[in-house]
Amino acid sequence: MEFQHNTLTEKVFDYLKEKIILHVYKPGERIDISKLVKELSVSPIPIREALQKLRARGLVDYKPHVGFFVHRFTAKEVAEIFDVRLILEKFALEQGFSNLTINDLKQLVSLVNNARGKPRKVIEQYNQQIDRLLHHKIILEHAKNDFLLFLMSFINDYIEFVRHLVPRGITDFEEHVKIIKALQKKDLEAAIQALEEHIQSVKEDTLKWLEEKL
Amino acid sequence: MEFQHNTLTEKVFDYLKEKIILHVYKPGERIDISKLVKELSVSPIPIREALQKLRARGLVDYKPHVGFFVHRFTAKEVAEIFDVRLILEKFALEQGFSNLTINDLKQLVSLVNNARGKPRKVIEQYNQQIDRLLHHKIILEHAKNDFLLFLMSFINDYIEFVRHLVPRGITDFEEHVKIIKALQKKDLEAAIQALEEHIQSVKEDTLKWLEEKL
Repeated sequence: MEFQHNTLTEKVFDYLKEKIILHVYKPGERIDISKLVKELSVSPIPIREALQKLRARGLVDYKPHVGFFVHRFTAKEVAEIFDVRLILEKFALEQGFSNLTINDLKQLVSLVNNARGKPRKVIEQYNQQIDRLLHHKIILEHAKNDFLLFLMSFINDYIEFVRHLVPRGITDFEEHVKIIKALQKKDLEAAIQALEEHIQSVKEDTLKWLEEKL
Repeated sequence: MEFQHNTLTEKVFDYLKEKIILHVYKPGERIDISKLVKELSVSPIPIREALQKLRARGLVDYKPHVGFFVHRFTAKEVAEIFDVRLILEKFALEQGFSNLTINDLKQLVSLVNNARGKPRKVIEQYNQQIDRLLHHKIILEHAKNDFLLFLMSFINDYIEFVRHLVPRGITDFEEHVKIIKALQKKDLEAAIQALEEHIQSVKEDTLKWLEEKL
């Protein structure tokens, strides 16, 4: 399978996806194609193609004869996505655990040590790096299953989206530290439990956030 | 999320997907766009869009300046897909098990009873219906997780593809019966074990088949 694209459509796709994930375009907002034509100096064709791709990924909705809209996630959808995420990350961790070396954890541990005791804002910045490194490099890539990575790329879009919506502050950092400590001790069971607690906790905070917003 | 499409592109997509899954187009074969323009009496635009969608699903490869080709699955890819399939179907079965009623199994049981003792060819035809009903309606839909169904739609394309390649005859039927019997007894553990044996067995047969072909 090949999942790389470098066409104009792909560039527009990345551009629009970022706007959605960073909430420059708000949930429910209509996406104005003629405005994008001017903004990006491209024809409507790659824009429409990119929007269809975003639609296939569930980030954009299409109403016939009306247009494209940023998808507005429901509580049910959020719960579903996190449940599947948990299953797949647990699987990845089990699969890749024996491939994991102390060396793989080095960078992660030094990020944690650098963050400790720093102001909240700085910890949050370190936590963003830790998040990507831990979930992606350490947990997912060590499973050495490209198809899993492909499916997770769908989930990651939603996770990114949620990360920029729901403030989790230091909690997120502490949960990550717990997983990393279990990995350092080569304790798979404890690592899986910490991972499960973390993902459930993000899920619950996201659902709470959604409830308050509705 | 909305994953329904009824455009011309979608019709061409379904048309091409069927040709690939049923091996009318062979793995590695070049897909001739100008031939399709005549065959389907449509412009190249929906054909190219449909091919990009099939590419995003991993069923079609694209070589720049050369064209589109039916994807040729490797042993590694097949193993990866079946490993993820097993994880997700086990999860679905666990999630949906308590929703399952004897009434849900009725149709399945009568298909099994009708098939029993019939000639091989007839059993295989019944087995196709049993397969769809068991995996899709009973196991996946009872989990009531639309996002899981969305991810499984990717996997199902590959499974269909493989089903039309690898002859599994009566083995497949007997493995299904084992799962159904465990479900009738409301024995979740036995059902999960039978599901696991079945998916591993399809995986191994597919890998064996691929090895002989290479």
